[in-house]
Amino acid sequence: MARIAVYAGSFDPITVGHMDLVRRAAALFDRVVLALGTNPSKNYLLSMEERRELLEACASDMENVAVDVFDGLLIDYCRKTGANVILRGLRAVTDFEFEFQIGLANMDMAPDIETVFLLTEPKNIFISSSLVREIAVNGGDVQRYLPTPAYDALMRAIARD
Amino acid sequence: MARIAVYAGSFDPITVGHMDLVRRAAALFDRVVLALGTNPSKNYLLSMEERRELLEACASDMENVAVDVFDGLLIDYCRKTGANVILRGLRAVTDFEFEFQIGLANMDMAPDIETVFLLTEPKNIFISSSLVREIAVNGGDVQRYLPTPAYDALMRAIARD
Amino acid sequence: MARIAVYAGSFDPITVGHMDLVRRAAALFDRVVLALGTNPSKNYLLSMEERRELLEACASDMENVAVDVFDGLLIDYCRKTGANVILRGLRAVTDFEFEFQIGLANMDMAPDIETVFLLTEPKNIFISSSLVREIAVNGGDVQRYLPTPAYDALMRAIARD
Amino acid sequence: MARIAVYAGSFDPITVGHMDLVRRAAALFDRVVLALGTNPSKNYLLSMEERRELLEACASDMENVAVDVFDGLLIDYCRKTGANVILRGLRAVTDFEFEFQIGLANMDMAPDIETVFLLTEPKNIFISSSLVREIAVNGGDVQRYLPTPAYDALMRAIARD
Amino acid sequence: MARIAVYAGSFDPITVGHMDLVRRAAALFDRVVLALGTNPSKNYLLSMEERRELLEACASDMENVAVDVFDGLLIDYCRKTGANVILRGLRAVTDFEFEFQIGLANMDMAPDIETVFLLTEPKNIFISSSLVREIAVNGGDVQRYLPTPAYDALMRAIARD
Amino acid sequence: MARIAVYAGSFDPITVGHMDLVRRAAALFDRVVLALGTNPSKNYLLSMEERRELLEACASDMENVAVDVFDGLLIDYCRKTGANVILRGLRAVTDFEFEFQIGLANMDMAPDIETVFLLTEPKNIFISSSLVREIAVNGGDVQRYLPTPAYDALMRAIARD
Repeated sequence: MARIAVYAGSFDPITVGHMDLVRRAAALFDRVVLALGTNPSKNYLLSMEERRELLEACASDMENVAVDVFDGLLIDYCRKTGANVILRGLRAVTDFEFEFQIGLANMDMAPDIETVFLLTEPKNIFISSSLVREIAVNGGDVQRYLPTPAYDALMRAIARD
Repeated sequence: MARIAVYAGSFDPITVGHMDLVRRAAALFDRVVLALGTNPSKNYLLSMEERRELLEACASDMENVAVDVFDGLLIDYCRKTGANVILRGLRAVTDFEFEFQIGLANMDMAPDIETVFLLTEPKNIFISSSLVREIAVNGGDVQRYLPTPAYDALMRAIARD
Repeated sequence: MARIAVYAGSFDPITVGHMDLVRRAAALFDRVVLALGTNPSKNYLLSMEERRELLEACASDMENVAVDVFDGLLIDYCRKTGANVILRGLRAVTDFEFEFQIGLANMDMAPDIETVFLLTEPKNIFISSSLVREIAVNGGDVQRYLPTPAYDALMRAIARD
Repeated sequence: MARIAVYAGSFDPITVGHMDLVRRAAALFDRVVLALGTNPSKNYLLSMEERRELLEACASDMENVAVDVFDGLLIDYCRKTGANVILRGLRAVTDFEFEFQIGLANMDMAPDIETVFLLTEPKNIFISSSLVREIAVNGGDVQRYLPTPAYDALMRAIARD
Repeated sequence: MARIAVYAGSFDPITVGHMDLVRRAAALFDRVVLALGTNPSKNYLLSMEERRELLEACASDMENVAVDVFDGLLIDYCRKTGANVILRGLRAVTDFEFEFQIGLANMDMAPDIETVFLLTEPKNIFISSSLVREIAVNGGDVQRYLPTPAYDALMRAIARD
Repeated sequence: MARIAVYAGSFDPITVGHMDLVRRAAALFDRVVLALGTNPSKNYLLSMEERRELLEACASDMENVAVDVFDGLLIDYCRKTGANVILRGLRAVTDFEFEFQIGLANMDMAPDIETVFLLTEPKNIFISSSLVREIAVNGGDVQRYLPTPAYDALMRAIARD
C-alpha cells in the first residue's frame, strides 16, 4: 500500500521551514500532497491562486510532491484521495496543546489516518508564515525565510496593498 | 457551610466533556451551578436561549445541579449567590498559562473563593465546544462528542445558517 | 456522604506552601488527612517520626485536619480509609506532566476517587521541600518558608548531619 | 558603550507589573526607553496620547528612563536610536512559545541586539493590561494593579465608552 | 528504498502503549525494529533476556516487526542496520523538552535519519513502564496496562525480588 | 555602579553554547564571572581542576571575563563578590519550571540581585554538558559542540575511565 502524506496549511506564503519539511517528508513517504486549505472566513495576504502557484513552483523539482486545494475536514480530504498520513511540523516554539488537540480529534474520528510529526530544523524554528508577513509588512528583510518565488509574491502583495 | 461550585462557560454547545465534569463535581460539592456567561462582543452559534435550554435539559437528571445566567465578573456572581468554589477542567491539552492567570487573578481579588481544577477523562481530552463546532460546520460527525439535545440543537443551528 | 481529602507527600519538611493549601482545603472538605508517605528507597533529611510530629504540630489548630502514615498505593489508602479526594497543589512552576500522569493513572484505577488541584498562592509558588532543604544545607535563611516547628527541626537535622 | 534597553508594548494601560520591571531594568542598564508601539489595526481602550502621557507620568521619577513612540520593526527602532537591548518580562503564566519565536526572530535579524528577560515578581505574575482592562470593564476593582495615573485614566476611559 | 523505523527503549516491561504504537508504525513503515537498549548503569526489574523474550513474544504476530539489542548511540545503530527512521511516541504528558533535545541532537549528528513522532492514544497517555512498575510493586493491578506475557513476567519478577 | 554578572554551573565540560552566551553577556555587562560550582555529592567526569583550567583557557581572550570557584548559595557568592546579576541561558528545550523556581527563590532571598535570561542561539539549543558527555561516552562525535580545549579534555577523561 502506498503511503501518501498530506501537509495541509494556508501557506500565506510558503516558507523555507515548510520547504525543508516537505523535502524530508518526500524521502519518507511515497507521495506528499501540499493541500491548500480554503477558509472563507480568514483574511489572506496572497490570493488562493497566488498561493497555489507558489506551491506548484516550489514543488516542481520534487517528483513525488503534488499540490491540491481542499475544503471541509482534512480527514475527509484524506479519505477521498486515499491519503493515510497527516504531516505536521514541531517547532519547539509551536503551540503544542493545539497540535495535540487537533491530532487527537483526528485520531478519534479517523483511526486509520496517522498524524506524523517531524522536527523543524533549529535554524528555522522561529519561522512561520504569520511572523514573516508581519516582519515584511513592517519593512523587515524576509528574503532568507522564503523560497524566491514566495518572496517575490509577498513583496508584490505588500506593494499593492 | 454548604459548598457551592460554579462551572462557568459559554457552552456553545455543552459537550460530553462538560457533562462528565459536572457529574463528578456534583458528587464532590453540595451544589453545582452551570453559569452561562453572556459576552455581547462574542459571536455564538447557538442563541443564549438555546444554550440555556440545553444546559437545563442536560442537568435535569442531576438533583444538585442548577443552571443560571450571569454577566460581569465571575467572582461577583459567586459572592452574590453564595458560591465558594469556581470549577475548572484541566484537559492536558488546555492553555494552562491562561488558566493560571485567571485563577490567580480570582484568588487575588477574592481569596475566599477557591478555584478547583478537576482532570478531564482521557477519552475527552481533545473535546472543546469550539473544536466540535468547527468539525460540525465542516460536515464531520460530532454525535459522540455531544449530549443528544446538544447534538440536535447544533445540527439545527448549522442547517439554518 | 462526607468528603474526605487526602494530601499525601513526604513533607521533608512541611512548608508554608503546604500549610496554606491544607488550610484552604480544610474549608472545602469535611476532613483533610495529611498522609505521610513511606518510601524506604528514598533518603530523607528528617526521620519519619520527626516528620510525623511536625505534621501533627502544624495541624493541631485545625479541627478537621488529621495526620496519618501510609505505604503502598495512595488509592488503596484512600479506599481503606474512606477518603474520596486526592488533593494536589498547582504551583505554576510544578512539573505538570508528572502531575497529569499520576492523576490520570489514579483516575483510571479508581474512578470513584477524584483528584482535585488547588492553586498555590503566588508568594509561595517557588517553595518546595527539596528547594528549602538545599537552601538551608547551603547556609541560606529559610525561616520565611517554613512553619516554626519545621524550621527548628530542619535546623537541628542539619546541625547533626 | 552605553547599554540602552528598550521596553516595548502597547501599555493599554501601564500596570504595576510593567512599573516593577522598568524600575529593576533602570538599575541594570544605563538607559531604559519605554517604547509605545503603534499598531493601527489594533483597538485600544486608551488613545495613543493618553498612553504616552501615562508612561511619562509614571517614568518621571526615574532619571534614566525615557518615553518614546515607534512604528515598524522594533529592531529597526533599536538601531535608529542606538539601543542594544530588548527587554521582556517573564511571567510564568506568559505565552513562552510566542516570546521565544519573537526573540529568536529578532536575534536572527539583528544579532547585535540582545533580548533580555527578567522575572516578574510573584505577586504580579497574573497581571496583564488586557486582563486588567477586562476586569475593570466588568466592574472589578483594579486599583492595586495599576499606578494611580493609569487607574484614573482607565476609569475615565471606561466611563466615556 | 525501504523505510525502516527503529523504536528504541528499555521496555522494562513493554506496555500496551508501546504495543499500540508499534502496530500503527508497522502499517506506516516497511519494517519496524524494537531495539532494546543496554545501559549497564541503569537498574532494571526484568533482565535483558526477559525483556528481549517479551519483545519477541509480543511482536511475533506482526510480520514486519523485528526485535534487536543495541548499545552505543542510536544513530550509529540505525546506520549500521540501514534504518532511516527513529520512532517516538508523544504522550501529552511526556517530557517534551527532553524529547526535543534528543531529537534535535540526532538530527544534527545524522540529518539522513528522521525522527518521527506519533501520538499516543488518549486511553494510554498516562501509561509508562516506570509508572506501571511502581504501581505493581505497590500491589496495584496493572493487568490492563500490559500485554499478557509482560504482565506475567512482571509478576514473577516482583515475586522473586 | 559596575554591573557584574555571574554565570554559574558545573561546566562538565564547558560547551559552545556556554561560550556563545558568555561572549554575548560580556558585551552587556561590565564584567562576567564564570563561577564553577562545587557540589561534593555530584559525580563529575572532569575534575574540578580540569574544569577550572578549561574555563580559564576558554575565557582567556575575553578581557572582562573572569573565572572563579564557589560553594554555598549562589546569592551569597554574589553578595560577597559584589555581583548584581545572575546570568542564565534559555534553550527552548530547557526545563523552564525549574529555572523559574530557582529564579523566583533567588529573587525572594536577594531582591537586589537580578536574574537575567538570554536566549540560546537556535543552532545550540539542544547542546548541554550532560548530553555531550553521554554522546561522547557512547562513541559519538562531539567536536562541533565543544571548544577545542574542552573537547581534548573530554576525550582524555573518557580514555582514562
